[in-house]
Amino acid sequence: MLNKLKRLIVGKALRSEQAVHERLTKKVALAVFSSDALSSTAYATEEILLVLATAVAFGQANAFGYVIPVSIGIAVLLAIVTISYRQTIHAYPTGGGAYIVAKENLGTVPGLVAGASLLVDYVLTVSVSISAGVAAITSAAQGTSFAWISEHKVAIGLFFIGLICVANLRGVRESGALFAAPTYAFLVSFLFMIGYGLIYYLLYDGVATPPHDDSVKLAEGYAPQALTVFLLLGAFSNGCSALTGVEAISNGVQAFKRPEAKNASKTLLAMALLLGAMFIGTSVLAYLFGVHPHEDETVISQFARHIFTGGMGWFYYVVQASTAAILILAANTAFADFPRLSSLLARDRFLPRQFANRGDKLVFSNGIIILAIFASLLVIGFGGDTSRLIPLYAVGVFLSFTLSQAGMVRHWIKVRRHEFYDDAIHASEVESDKTLPDVGLAMEQSKSPRFVTDEVTERKNWKKSLVINAVGAVATAVVLTVFVVTKFVHGAWLVVVMIPLLVMIFMAIHRHYLAVARQLSMEEIDDKLKPINHRVIVPISGIHRGVLHALQYAKSIANDDVTAVFIDFEEEATAKLKERWDRLDLGVKLVVLPSPYRELTRPLLRYIYRIDRKNDDDVLTVVLPEFVPARWWQHLLHNQSSLLLKGRLLFKPGIIVTNVPYHLKQ
Amino acid sequence: MLNKLKRLIVGKALRSEQAVHERLTKKVALAVFSSDALSSTAYATEEILLVLATAVAFGQANAFGYVIPVSIGIAVLLAIVTISYRQTIHAYPTGGGAYIVAKENLGTVPGLVAGASLLVDYVLTVSVSISAGVAAITSAAQGTSFAWISEHKVAIGLFFIGLICVANLRGVRESGALFAAPTYAFLVSFLFMIGYGLIYYLLYDGVATPPHDDSVKLAEGYAPQALTVFLLLGAFSNGCSALTGVEAISNGVQAFKRPEAKNASKTLLAMALLLGAMFIGTSVLAYLFGVHPHEDETVISQFARHIFTGGMGWFYYVVQASTAAILILAANTAFADFPRLSSLLARDRFLPRQFANRGDKLVFSNGIIILAIFASLLVIGFGGDTSRLIPLYAVGVFLSFTLSQAGMVRHWIKVRRHEFYDDAIHASEVESDKTLPDVGLAMEQSKSPRFVTDEVTERKNWKKSLVINAVGAVATAVVLTVFVVTKFVHGAWLVVVMIPLLVMIFMAIHRHYLAVARQLSMEEIDDKLKPINHRVIVPISGIHRGVLHALQYAKSIANDDVTAVFIDFEEEATAKLKERWDRLDLGVKLVVLPSPYRELTRPLLRYIYRIDRKNDDDVLTVVLPEFVPARWWQHLLHNQSSLLLKGRLLFKPGIIVTNVPYHLKQ
Repeated sequence: MLNKLKRLIVGKALRSEQAVHERLTKKVALAVFSSDALSSTAYATEEILLVLATAVAFGQANAFGYVIPVSIGIAVLLAIVTISYRQTIHAYPTGGGAYIVAKENLGTVPGLVAGASLLVDYVLTVSVSISAGVAAITSAAQGTSFAWISEHKVAIGLFFIGLICVANLRGVRESGALFAAPTYAFLVSFLFMIGYGLIYYLLYDGVATPPHDDSVKLAEGYAPQALTVFLLLGAFSNGCSALTGVEAISNGVQAFKRPEAKNASKTLLAMALLLGAMFIGTSVLAYLFGVHPHEDETVISQFARHIFTGGMGWFYYVVQASTAAILILAANTAFADFPRLSSLLARDRFLPRQFANRGDKLVFSNGIIILAIFASLLVIGFGGDTSRLIPLYAVGVFLSFTLSQAGMVRHWIKVRRHEFYDDAIHASEVESDKTLPDVGLAMEQSKSPRFVTDEVTERKNWKKSLVINAVGAVATAVVLTVFVVTKFVHGAWLVVVMIPLLVMIFMAIHRHYLAVARQLSMEEIDDKLKPINHRVIVPISGIHRGVLHALQYAKSIANDDVTAVFIDFEEEATAKLKERWDRLDLGVKLVVLPSPYRELTRPLLRYIYRIDRKNDDDVLTVVLPEFVPARWWQHLLHNQSSLLLKGRLLFKPGIIVTNVPYHLKQ
Repeated sequence: MLNKLKRLIVGKALRSEQAVHERLTKKVALAVFSSDALSSTAYATEEILLVLATAVAFGQANAFGYVIPVSIGIAVLLAIVTISYRQTIHAYPTGGGAYIVAKENLGTVPGLVAGASLLVDYVLTVSVSISAGVAAITSAAQGTSFAWISEHKVAIGLFFIGLICVANLRGVRESGALFAAPTYAFLVSFLFMIGYGLIYYLLYDGVATPPHDDSVKLAEGYAPQALTVFLLLGAFSNGCSALTGVEAISNGVQAFKRPEAKNASKTLLAMALLLGAMFIGTSVLAYLFGVHPHEDETVISQFARHIFTGGMGWFYYVVQASTAAILILAANTAFADFPRLSSLLARDRFLPRQFANRGDKLVFSNGIIILAIFASLLVIGFGGDTSRLIPLYAVGVFLSFTLSQAGMVRHWIKVRRHEFYDDAIHASEVESDKTLPDVGLAMEQSKSPRFVTDEVTERKNWKKSLVINAVGAVATAVVLTVFVVTKFVHGAWLVVVMIPLLVMIFMAIHRHYLAVARQLSMEEIDDKLKPINHRVIVPISGIHRGVLHALQYAKSIANDDVTAVFIDFEEEATAKLKERWDRLDLGVKLVVLPSPYRELTRPLLRYIYRIDRKNDDDVLTVVLPEFVPARWWQHLLHNQSSLLLKGRLLFKPGIIVTNVPYHLKQ
């Protein structure tokens, strides 16, 4: 029944051979990999304004003007990161996620830090994108008869998370068709909105009054305050959420058509240009139209509603709909990234191996479910409010940027030394031999994608590349520091605590798996299958067919040494049983154990342990006669004592438990 | 840890020998057995008034006057029942509960009906008594600064039920000291109140105005209506709750000092006289002082508050406290009766055998816990309101009265025929042979108390006794009919549905136990322990020490026919494993099963079933290698597939599952 429910939700299971690998053109790849990055333009400007609004509320009316320089600063950072990542694409054409790059070049711990940061940020990507998508929908509902839906932001958010989760469990492919439509619709409508907005501003007399009353929303946790450098840095930190997702293309190089690296690099450039243009354009429009952040309506919705009037009114809804769509798509990308990264971590034995198992639909189901749970908890905990989640966001991404770039710096140093290949390959071989003795624990073997680099190009340009990545590493490290300082009290502390905690958990898990492998290792075993001296104990509750069946089995494995054990609850019944036992003459010794407190398990266990201690060389088997009722409810009518006994015996080394069920038919 | 918590709650376990049997003097026995019956005077009068109040609300101001004749009618019924039960005491000096009397004289089904009725009514006794006890407490709080506690009736009720439950699990004895004090305090204070009230009425000018405003409470579900015979019968039905608990002495005859029957009979008479006097006295006082039932204060509290003024004000609190105490004591008696009756039913195989097991403190713990759960549900469901529970109450008791008296009639007919002893003893022997073949299912043998009658007296008086019990049976049957008719729509329907349902459940359980006994019976077994042809399958997930250990064990029980089974998830890993297997040369055949859908359990089960079918004569053992982590959390890091497999194999006849655990130390 449970199985049927599962089939209904996730659909028919797929055979392992059915895994396919689509190769993407640049245009389609842009759609597949950019939704996360591009969609952040839907909230990045607003997050800057929310911080600046604290100065406006303090009385400095011109504070909103700083949205332009702050946005330009972020665009510069975008340029640096983009150029840096183009290096990574060329160096790691088979996919250079921060975990892999950091682990291979900087060592295990930096790799795990990058991995933990990314996992945390993927969870945040889902909750932030979904919250922002819901905000786009509820903003559109303002002023209509559906305005009440803004009270159900959390419920709507959870609905979308559930929907994406089920879609991913069903194995939705990152297929071009699915992604291209909403991404290009968003691109077109957004760019059109920016162009139309600029023209509208020039034609219609410039400064528009804020379309809403002055119930201005401030950034969560900020009091009205004077404009200081620190506040500007806070605005900058918030705005940097625009940069999340930029790394996506460098992770997915192998999905591009040949030549992979070149195509990916071009696509990254295109995406960065589009992102920069849209982000600056949004900030400019927000400034020109003097939009104040508002509790119930997004900044974009406010000026879009303002400029698209009359015959163009319908276009407002196009903007909102395509914004909501791309934001939900952005959440969906995290549902591809999180399970993939957690499966990599699981293969390297830093996460439970269950994360490496592919489900019915060949997807990493456990990762999908865990992501949905954590993202839902965040949406609930933060009331589905994007701006309350933002202080937690982007910290992880920038930490992984920094580590990834630093790793690239080290990569170029290695390249220079001409020792790169031998070194790396050697290291990886040694490691896999050491950490993962092939004891069959892994159904699926560890296979982190290895790098195949265009050697000639690399060696020629290593100096230039080193400088680029060093600049990237330093820039992102500085920004990261700014984040931690400005956002710490607003929520970033949670991430600062979580990441080391996760790393410690990863390492504890790893130590456990290594310990298991060591303990199960086949080395130093001389006598492979030496014969066993059997000794069998059969606890009985009386004399009946089930018991007879069990005794028969017990005798067949240890004819000489079978002992039946009976617990004496009541003198009379015990005497009767003894008498019957003698009459039956089964050739099995009967031991009666006293139980003054009418317990079953304790006297039995005590006896079993005693026998076990006395005969240290023998293997002690406890044969449990069990009768299995025909119907489930009938189980309730019998004491489940054998289950209890089994549970206790499992933890006692050297004792083997055998169930001899006797099946009832009625 | 769980065990420690249990010890903290129920205390130290008792040894089986520590069971003691106190013999009670008449005075102490009155306290022990009468709290249920006597305590009902605390609410019986009020329940009559609640029905009459519907006529008062209709405009017939004199309707309350009918409380006197209705109460006298109930007292007459009490006399009939008392005289009837004196017969039972003499006929069943070892304890003649309705279940035993009806079963032995009328047959199994009537016995079960009586048993079901009593179980239902014991649950109601707890919820009604506790609700009334809480009402006594909250009434006393009216007009004080603690008046707010009346909003927490349910919580207070649940607290008391929990307290009594724990006390009984700890094995509180029905000891004289514990019971005598509150019972006699209640008797003295109540009788004093009635006497004082009558004198007060004569001295102080008679008619007192109702002490409270006229927010009169009506019986639940009744609209204001004219006084009709039907309404009077409804009032009578409600008042009959005073008679519950009268049967307690006849159940406990064996607890009296010698001569048991005579002492019990005298005590019953004394109790009936006290009960009658207190009940009529209460009704008279309520009438004289013109008390109206009130939402927040009991009738007794109202006139007690009225008469105990000035220097006697303190005595009001004595009355309320002793009333609350005896009501809680009354609930406690159900905690002795319900587990005892359910253990009798369990011994006769009509309830799960767990009800017949004595817990640590030699009490029937399961019965105690079940009673507490059901009583709590009733208190919650009916908001802790006595008057809402009353329509359900007493139906069961009167059904058991009727069956018990009818059983006695049949008993006297048997006595007359001079065939009583032979018949009964024969029947009981045949039955125990037929229904309970001694297959050891019962740790504790069925031992329903048997009757030892004073033969001479019995035979002499059989005619008189027959008439008395016949009158009793008819009277209680008529009253039962009145109950069902008048209270059906107010809640009695629930009981009318429940009792047959319970009887059906009893019989289904009985059928199951009989079927099990038949199937496990040792009859028709020729070849007691014939040798077994073994065949062993060892599912493996790889090659490691744990697997080796399991293979070693498997070979020791079936050297020729051990097959290791490996599930092929991935070609590469499988090829590697095969190669290693061949190298190891263990002398065990390896079978590789394909699993296109990456499933573990299904292909394995399919293979196991196929092998099992092919070799029908052999016993198929599945040896599961299992490694047991050193710490509990490490279990989370391993797939629990062997658990799943075990669960599935349990239900497949002919397959034996053996766990060979390999214990890890780190």
